[in-house]
Amino acid sequence: MNKLLENERIDDLYRNGYKIIQSSETFSFGIDAVLLSGFAKVKKGEKVLDLCTGTGVIPILLEAKTEGSHFDAIELQPISADMARRSVELNGLEDKITITEGDIRQCHTYFEQGSFNVVTCNPPYTPAGTGYVNDTDPVAIARHEIMCNIDDVFSAAAKMLKYGGRLYMVHRFERLCDIFCTGRKYMLEPKFIRFVQTTQTKPPVLVLIEFLKGGGPGLKTGLPLVVYKGDGSYSDEVNDIYNK
Amino acid sequence: MNKLLENERIDDLYRNGYKIIQSSETFSFGIDAVLLSGFAKVKKGEKVLDLCTGTGVIPILLEAKTEGSHFDAIELQPISADMARRSVELNGLEDKITITEGDIRQCHTYFEQGSFNVVTCNPPYTPAGTGYVNDTDPVAIARHEIMCNIDDVFSAAAKMLKYGGRLYMVHRFERLCDIFCTGRKYMLEPKFIRFVQTTQTKPPVLVLIEFLKGGGPGLKTGLPLVVYKGDGSYSDEVNDIYNK
Repeated sequence: MNKLLENERIDDLYRNGYKIIQSSETFSFGIDAVLLSGFAKVKKGEKVLDLCTGTGVIPILLEAKTEGSHFDAIELQPISADMARRSVELNGLEDKITITEGDIRQCHTYFEQGSFNVVTCNPPYTPAGTGYVNDTDPVAIARHEIMCNIDDVFSAAAKMLKYGGRLYMVHRFERLCDIFCTGRKYMLEPKFIRFVQTTQTKPPVLVLIEFLKGGGPGLKTGLPLVVYKGDGSYSDEVNDIYNK
Repeated sequence: MNKLLENERIDDLYRNGYKIIQSSETFSFGIDAVLLSGFAKVKKGEKVLDLCTGTGVIPILLEAKTEGSHFDAIELQPISADMARRSVELNGLEDKITITEGDIRQCHTYFEQGSFNVVTCNPPYTPAGTGYVNDTDPVAIARHEIMCNIDDVFSAAAKMLKYGGRLYMVHRFERLCDIFCTGRKYMLEPKFIRFVQTTQTKPPVLVLIEFLKGGGPGLKTGLPLVVYKGDGSYSDEVNDIYNK
């Protein structure tokens, strides 16, 4: 059993009995990461890379949900990368998930180019320089585009994916034009999108998007994913994703 | 009273008693044009240009609904432009609406650059070369990007709009990435979008988008616009737009 550091706790992931170490001092995963793990499609035997993995929630959930052969994940911040590595050990997943501490802008120095079938990313959402931000604060680095912006994510995904590989991303609705234009710059074409609404009566705030490396134009969508029912409880679809 | 040509008919527009001449030989306007006329915002005294106007339904509806000062409209096909001009006369709107027969790729030869507050467009939706198309058929020219593609529409809108002017466009959902990327190429930034669903339980098929010339990034949306209720009748919102 791993030893917890100060301010750390162990949370249940409701999948395969898996647990995750989180800390009140750093960024805790949100529903966005869980929705992305439900949206991403990983086929049997595929190799997956999660960019900006934080505490490693996405590779751990994807290992539980899919038959992917191996899950790599990269995280810039040493404290988060260390927690992610200890969570992998806590679940006995060292053979399936590898956490790398590093900068996604240098991902080609850690991984072979064009070697992944799937890349996932729940990146920082807010442009740098928006409001007051402490550039060294771990939570600020996870939330703001200080060390990693949309261009960095697509550039890394384009390098790491095989031709025909897929990138799955969650982001804020308001950044949709930035996301599409940057994707196309790197030949990552959006093929499927779902809009995420908090409730049935509120406009979407998040987007879940599948990009195809080298794909031609033509975007499809489904019905919006609604998080909460009228009574404030999770919708059936979100309960399914959470496995509750 | 204008004389109708063979195969022409007069349809009611349910606004100010306005009517429109259409023909079974050419493209008749669809719900898309009506939804665009409900989506476009024209303020008092603003000058409006409708690209690919067809039989002129959009300028006639916008004249009825808004306090715009003047409505120009351009149409490539002589038969449609002639019908549009006769519809303007039929409604006694010669002082408010001017129909120009011409190619939007040459719009700077008909209109002064940067002289419009608002541009509207319900363009052909389907890429040229998709399926069998007769390039000289008036309906094919209205539906397929034979004489006018997305790049042509944004190029014309960018030339015609003042800085800070707005473009309102309706298009197919599947073209969203093409639309955003081409808009940004011409410094027309999408600021507001509504997704149009046939029913509450079907994914969106159309998009209504407001672009701002010279606008910064940041896209907002509302709830999807649903066309039909469960019983097959128009939704309240669409009835409002149709004024039925």
